[in-house]
Amino acid sequence: MRAVDIILKKRNNLPLTQEEIHFIIEGYVSGEIPDYQISALLMAICFNGLNSEERKNLTLEMLHSGEEVDLSQIDGICVDKHSTGGVGDKTSLVVAPIVASCGLKIAKMSGRGLGHTGGTLDKLESIPGFSISVSSKDFFKQVKEIGIAIVGQTANITPADKKLYALRDVTGTVESVGLISASIMSKKLASGAHSILLDVKVGDGAFMKTIDDATTLAKAMVEIGNSCGRKTVAMLTDMDQPLGEAVGNSIEVIEAIETLKGRGNSDFRKLCYEISSQMLLMTGVCKDKEEALKLVDEKITSGAALEKLRQMIIYQHGNPNVIDDYSLFGKCKNDVLVKASTSGYVSKIKTLDVGISAMLLGAGRNKKEDPIDPVVGVGVKVKVGTKVNKGDTLAIIHSNGKNEKEAYEMLASSFVISDEFVSEKDIILGIVE
Amino acid sequence: MRAVDIILKKRNNLPLTQEEIHFIIEGYVSGEIPDYQISALLMAICFNGLNSEERKNLTLEMLHSGEEVDLSQIDGICVDKHSTGGVGDKTSLVVAPIVASCGLKIAKMSGRGLGHTGGTLDKLESIPGFSISVSSKDFFKQVKEIGIAIVGQTANITPADKKLYALRDVTGTVESVGLISASIMSKKLASGAHSILLDVKVGDGAFMKTIDDATTLAKAMVEIGNSCGRKTVAMLTDMDQPLGEAVGNSIEVIEAIETLKGRGNSDFRKLCYEISSQMLLMTGVCKDKEEALKLVDEKITSGAALEKLRQMIIYQHGNPNVIDDYSLFGKCKNDVLVKASTSGYVSKIKTLDVGISAMLLGAGRNKKEDPIDPVVGVGVKVKVGTKVNKGDTLAIIHSNGKNEKEAYEMLASSFVISDEFVSEKDIILGIVE
Repeated sequence: MRAVDIILKKRNNLPLTQEEIHFIIEGYVSGEIPDYQISALLMAICFNGLNSEERKNLTLEMLHSGEEVDLSQIDGICVDKHSTGGVGDKTSLVVAPIVASCGLKIAKMSGRGLGHTGGTLDKLESIPGFSISVSSKDFFKQVKEIGIAIVGQTANITPADKKLYALRDVTGTVESVGLISASIMSKKLASGAHSILLDVKVGDGAFMKTIDDATTLAKAMVEIGNSCGRKTVAMLTDMDQPLGEAVGNSIEVIEAIETLKGRGNSDFRKLCYEISSQMLLMTGVCKDKEEALKLVDEKITSGAALEKLRQMIIYQHGNPNVIDDYSLFGKCKNDVLVKASTSGYVSKIKTLDVGISAMLLGAGRNKKEDPIDPVVGVGVKVKVGTKVNKGDTLAIIHSNGKNEKEAYEMLASSFVISDEFVSEKDIILGIVE
Repeated sequence: MRAVDIILKKRNNLPLTQEEIHFIIEGYVSGEIPDYQISALLMAICFNGLNSEERKNLTLEMLHSGEEVDLSQIDGICVDKHSTGGVGDKTSLVVAPIVASCGLKIAKMSGRGLGHTGGTLDKLESIPGFSISVSSKDFFKQVKEIGIAIVGQTANITPADKKLYALRDVTGTVESVGLISASIMSKKLASGAHSILLDVKVGDGAFMKTIDDATTLAKAMVEIGNSCGRKTVAMLTDMDQPLGEAVGNSIEVIEAIETLKGRGNSDFRKLCYEISSQMLLMTGVCKDKEEALKLVDEKITSGAALEKLRQMIIYQHGNPNVIDDYSLFGKCKNDVLVKASTSGYVSKIKTLDVGISAMLLGAGRNKKEDPIDPVVGVGVKVKVGTKVNKGDTLAIIHSNGKNEKEAYEMLASSFVISDEFVSEKDIILGIVE
């Protein structure tokens, strides 16, 4: 078997066999097949795609390239949630405690942020003392005892995906349903959960800009998950405006805590309720949507969900008092208001630009090695459809001085105000199962 | 400027600017841009193509990456001929002496064979003593004194193309009109000729399998040449059967000499007359086709063309007595006949397989470093449309034992004989100017 023949086969739009995909992935990880042949193959895949069988085989080859987390020692149903990445997406910080308080087991390995999208690990680390580096032994102990842990990788999972992703990043081959779905699903399978809820973001602030593209990706991932024996459901959710209000790290954790206290922004709360209830449904904890939503609401109202978050913070060496005293997160130097220059309806929020302005302030990374400033970010005070008067506050910049002017200008130009009435947007756009 | 943005631009089917192409080629040659980014870009080009402007800019960037041969010190019109490669293609060995005997100057750098296609240099080297390694000084002296030289590269032309070609070869990105046309034309421009005749082969034994593909390539190359100030004409010629009879090295030189003596195979002779007369027309030596064909025939009949070949052999240290005594080429051990197993009309000759069977015998190279056996090869005794009886000789294998059985079987299965009448094929399929 020769790599060049496999490249030509894909270039000629023929499906690759399991043996050919194995040859490629094994050869790439071992260093026998060089980067330049893989990048040519990746580009051919971007043009000609991968069919269901190829996607599944690629996922399994990447899965088998590394360790797999064995969750069989944990009693109960282990469930995982994955977001394709958005702006202000602190959903896991609310959903995980909710479903854990309902008896599901969350043994979650999460990621860091890059570019305009944030990462759950960075947000958790804004809690003073919180550790995401947990040994495999402590990770299992924590999940057994309190039913929830959100940590960095405890095992060397999917090294093939890591190597491939680094190459895709510099060769213009990131965007591809086949490659994205195999990359995400190989990591999810390696993490060991029995059930997987995928939150596929759609819109200006997401990787998938259109509902069609997002649906295609969601279907591909759900198919891979189910064909590999894991119950998988995808929700398509709106990312044409930032999720909730806060875009940053500590400010997002505060918003998550507020939501767990039964307060907070209504669109974000709705998303958390929907995703949590979907997870309760797909795992059989509840038998219908109404029952699931009611159970979620009970866990919020009783404080049981918030208590789960508190337990997790304590187990992972964070200061649990932040839940009651937000000043323990620390504070940025300047709060700068972005005001409406005209009256009307907010017709559009350029979500990608909001994400980039938060990144510029130091809330995110332009390059992997950039440091994060946990207290800076952006607070978005309006939604698409909000009626505003000239001079009303549209957003607040929480700044420590870094790139403040640039971030301000980008953020100020992110809001489009129209004379005509604009209706509010739905947060849930569809479900693929 | 970043290479990844240029890759994405081409992936998104947007044309690249001159500055972007310059950035890519300069960065690649200098080693700043790695192979893996270039191969991804090449694959995107294979899918989305290059427009006229991009093709011209890529050609010029590759041209400017190395030395250019300055033929201004040579009086008269310097003309070059290039074949896209075929089976049994010894045309240059006949056409160059003909047009040189008509007063045109042939200062030609030629190539070696690879795969099923032969190379003019390998054929010339089958002449005992013949040297293709000529210093730049001797090269110019020879062209000034006798008007003809066919040599290996005397200058470091188009290093960018060499590096790119090596990468394309192993990444499935050879076939691309934009890349092929820029590769060929950058080398032709660097060789310095004022006029360029391109022989674009079409059919089973050629890189271009269909007349449409060949026409597209021919148009692209003619446009590049003319837009860069070189008179360029392309002929589309048949490669759905081997050219002439001989496929090898010394046996092809013998066939060329026979043709210069006014004998030899009629389809090959016709091609040589047509190409030579086209070169006389495009350079203004003759004013119409009839005059040109007449002049060519005179140079054959008078022996002037053969005399030019003799002069070239002498100048390049070969033994000119081979022209009169073919036994000086040496002889292979076995001549094995391939006979018709049935009566009928030859309806098809699998030309690629004929080329490969000659390669297997040692007449060509599978890999660049393979040695050539100058005396082996294949003699094809029939043409498409020839009526044969069972037992007639279809072809002869000239063998020194290497892969003889494999070559015989491949060659024997190359001939398709049909009950129904099959008409002969035209050798000239079109002209692009």
